Amino acid sequence: MSSNSSPRLALAMGDPCGVSPELTAGLLADAEVMESARLIVIGDRRVLALGETHAGVKIDLPVVTTEREALTANSHVFCDLGHLDPADVSLGEISLAGGKSALTNFNKAVELGNAGHVGAVCFTPFNKAAMRLAHPSYEDEIVYMSELLSFDGKASEFNILDGLWNARVTSHVPLSEVASLINQDIILENIELTHQSLVASGVESPRIGVAALNPHAGDNGNFGTEEIDIIGPAVEEGKRRGFGCDGPYPSDTVFVRARNGQFDAVLTMYHDQGQIAMKLIGFDKGVTLLGGYPFPVCTPAHGTAYDIAGKGVANLGASRNAILLGVRMAALASKNKDAQAETRMAG
Amino acid sequence: MSSNSSPRLALAMGDPCGVSPELTAGLLADAEVMESARLIVIGDRRVLALGETHAGVKIDLPVVTTEREALTANSHVFCDLGHLDPADVSLGEISLAGGKSALTNFNKAVELGNAGHVGAVCFTPFNKAAMRLAHPSYEDEIVYMSELLSFDGKASEFNILDGLWNARVTSHVPLSEVASLINQDIILENIELTHQSLVASGVESPRIGVAALNPHAGDNGNFGTEEIDIIGPAVEEGKRRGFGCDGPYPSDTVFVRARNGQFDAVLTMYHDQGQIAMKLIGFDKGVTLLGGYPFPVCTPAHGTAYDIAGKGVANLGASRNAILLGVRMAALASKNKDAQAETRMAG
Repeated sequence: MSSNSSPRLALAMGDPCGVSPELTAGLLADAEVMESARLIVIGDRRVLALGETHAGVKIDLPVVTTEREALTANSHVFCDLGHLDPADVSLGEISLAGGKSALTNFNKAVELGNAGHVGAVCFTPFNKAAMRLAHPSYEDEIVYMSELLSFDGKASEFNILDGLWNARVTSHVPLSEVASLINQDIILENIELTHQSLVASGVESPRIGVAALNPHAGDNGNFGTEEIDIIGPAVEEGKRRGFGCDGPYPSDTVFVRARNGQFDAVLTMYHDQGQIAMKLIGFDKGVTLLGGYPFPVCTPAHGTAYDIAGKGVANLGASRNAILLGVRMAALASKNKDAQAETRMAG
Repeated sequence: MSSNSSPRLALAMGDPCGVSPELTAGLLADAEVMESARLIVIGDRRVLALGETHAGVKIDLPVVTTEREALTANSHVFCDLGHLDPADVSLGEISLAGGKSALTNFNKAVELGNAGHVGAVCFTPFNKAAMRLAHPSYEDEIVYMSELLSFDGKASEFNILDGLWNARVTSHVPLSEVASLINQDIILENIELTHQSLVASGVESPRIGVAALNPHAGDNGNFGTEEIDIIGPAVEEGKRRGFGCDGPYPSDTVFVRARNGQFDAVLTMYHDQGQIAMKLIGFDKGVTLLGGYPFPVCTPAHGTAYDIAGKGVANLGASRNAILLGVRMAALASKNKDAQAETRMAG
C-alpha cells in the first residue's frame, strides 16, 4: 500500500466497451502502481467489477460516493459515480452511454486536478466516436481539455516510449494543410513546451531532435524549402534561447538517431511522421502525455481495442507506464513547490 | 565459383569517395555472392585495389578492357574502364571526377542490361551531389534510368527488407505537393507495378497494404477526405482487377501489420511515410529495386557513407541482398522466357 507521502492521482475509467475496465482492474492489482501513488479511481463500481472478471483479479478498495470522502481518505479509494449499469452497453460497440460515462469520469478527474487536489490525472482509453456521441464538438483530448479548463496557453500531446519523447507541431489536420500550418513561432513554442515537459518529468538537460518536413530534409531546397526558410532558422533561434535543440534532420533518420540515444525527444512537423516511428518502436508500451496544463494528464497511447475487449489479454504495460509517469511528474512538481515555499520563507 | 548456368549480372562500381570500393571488394570476396551469379564488374581496377585495402581482402579476378572480352568470359570478370586514378579523388569528398566515374560505370552496366547481355544490373551507392556535378539534370535514379533508356512506361523505386517491400506513389517532391499529386490512376498504376515486381521476384500471390494519406486515415473525413474520395476507390478498383490489395490503412499501423506478416508490400503515398518505417525496421540490410524496366536494377538502400569511408567497417548486408535479389529476378525471368519459348515451339 502507498504511504501518505505518495503523490495523489486521479484515475478516470475510460470507455467501458473496450479494454478500459480490465486495464483499470489490472492496475489496481499491480503492486508497483499501488505502491507508487494514492489513487482516486473514478467510475462506476459495477463497471470495475466487470473489469475484475475480465482480468481475472479481485479488487478490494474502499468505495466512496462523494468528492469530500474521496479527499479525506488516507489511501486508495474508488469514487463511485453510479452512473452506468454495464447491462446498458455492449462490449466492442460504440455507444452514447459509454461515451457519456467516460466523459463524466474524466470531467471529475480534471476538476480534482484543477483544484490542486491531485498531482496528476490519468485515464484508460477513450473511444473518439463514442466521445463525439456524448459531446459532438469533441475533436481530441487537447481541444477538449483546453475547453474544459478555459486554458489559452500552449498545450500539446506527447508520445513517450522507454524515455523517448515525440512531440509534434501539427496534429489532427489533413496532410495537405501541414506545410501551410508550420512557421517559426509555432516550432519555437513547441521546442519550449517540449523542453519544459521533459524537465517536469525529471530530464535535466533535454536534447531535442527536430525533424525536417520534406524528403531528404528538402535535399538543399530541391524538394521543398521549408527546412531553409522556416525549420532551420527556428532551430537556430531555439539554440540562441538556450534549448538543447538540433536539426532539421531527415525524418527517416531522426528516429534512428533518437533510438540510438542521441535525443530525449523528437519534434515532428506532422502526426504520422512521429506515429509511424513510435508505433514501430513499441506499440504496446507507449504513453501519451497532455503537457502544458497546470497538471500532467497521462494515458496509454493505444486505443480501446474493441476487438479484444473482455478477453483478459490486454497488455497492461502502457497503462502502468502512464501512471508511473504521472507519479514522477506529480512528485517532482510537489518537490519544486516545497523548495519554492522554503525559499520564500528563508527570504 | 559460379557455374555457366548462373545468371549473368553487371555490377557497376558507385561513388569512389564513399564505401563503394570496399563494398565491391567485400562482395567479390563473399562466397554466397560469387556462387550465385556470373558477375561483370565495371569500374577502374585501381579503385577496386583501393577497396581491397580498405576491406582487408585480396581479389583475384580476370581483368578485361572490352565489352566483347567481358561477354565471352565463362565466369566472373572485371571490366576495367581505366578512367579513374584514385589519386585524383579524396575519400569522403564530393567530386566531379567521382560522379563521372560512377555515371560511366552505370551507363555501361545499363547498356549491357538493355542489350540483354545481363539479366540484372546492380550498383554500389552513388552520391547524388557528385552525380549532379557530372550530370546537372540528375534528379534521382528513376528519372536518370528512364532518360537513359528513353523509357516511357511506368517505373518505380522499391525498398525491400527481409521480404517486406515498400513502394510509393510520390517520391522526391515537397510534402506540400503530395496531396495534389495523388489520384486514382496513379495509385492503380503503382498497385499493378508493385504486384508485377513482386511476382517477378518470386512472390506468387502478393498481398499489398495501401497506406492512407491523413492521420487516422482521415478519421472518417474529419482530417482529410482523400481516403474517401481517392485511395479507397482506387483500392476497390484494384481488387476488382484481381490484385491482392487492401486499405487504406492508417500509416502508423500499416507497417506494424506488415512487419507481423500481413502484407508482402506496403504502398505509401509519400517518401517518408515508408522511409521512416523501413529505416527503423532495418537500416543496414535494405535493398532498393528500380522496377518496371525490362531488367531489374538493384542497389543497397543506404548511401555512400562518407563518414566511414575507407575504415573497412561498412556493413556488406545490403549490398549482398541487392545482388541476391538481382540474381533471383534474373533467374526467374530467364526461366519464364525459356518456358515461353518451349510453348511456342510446342505450339
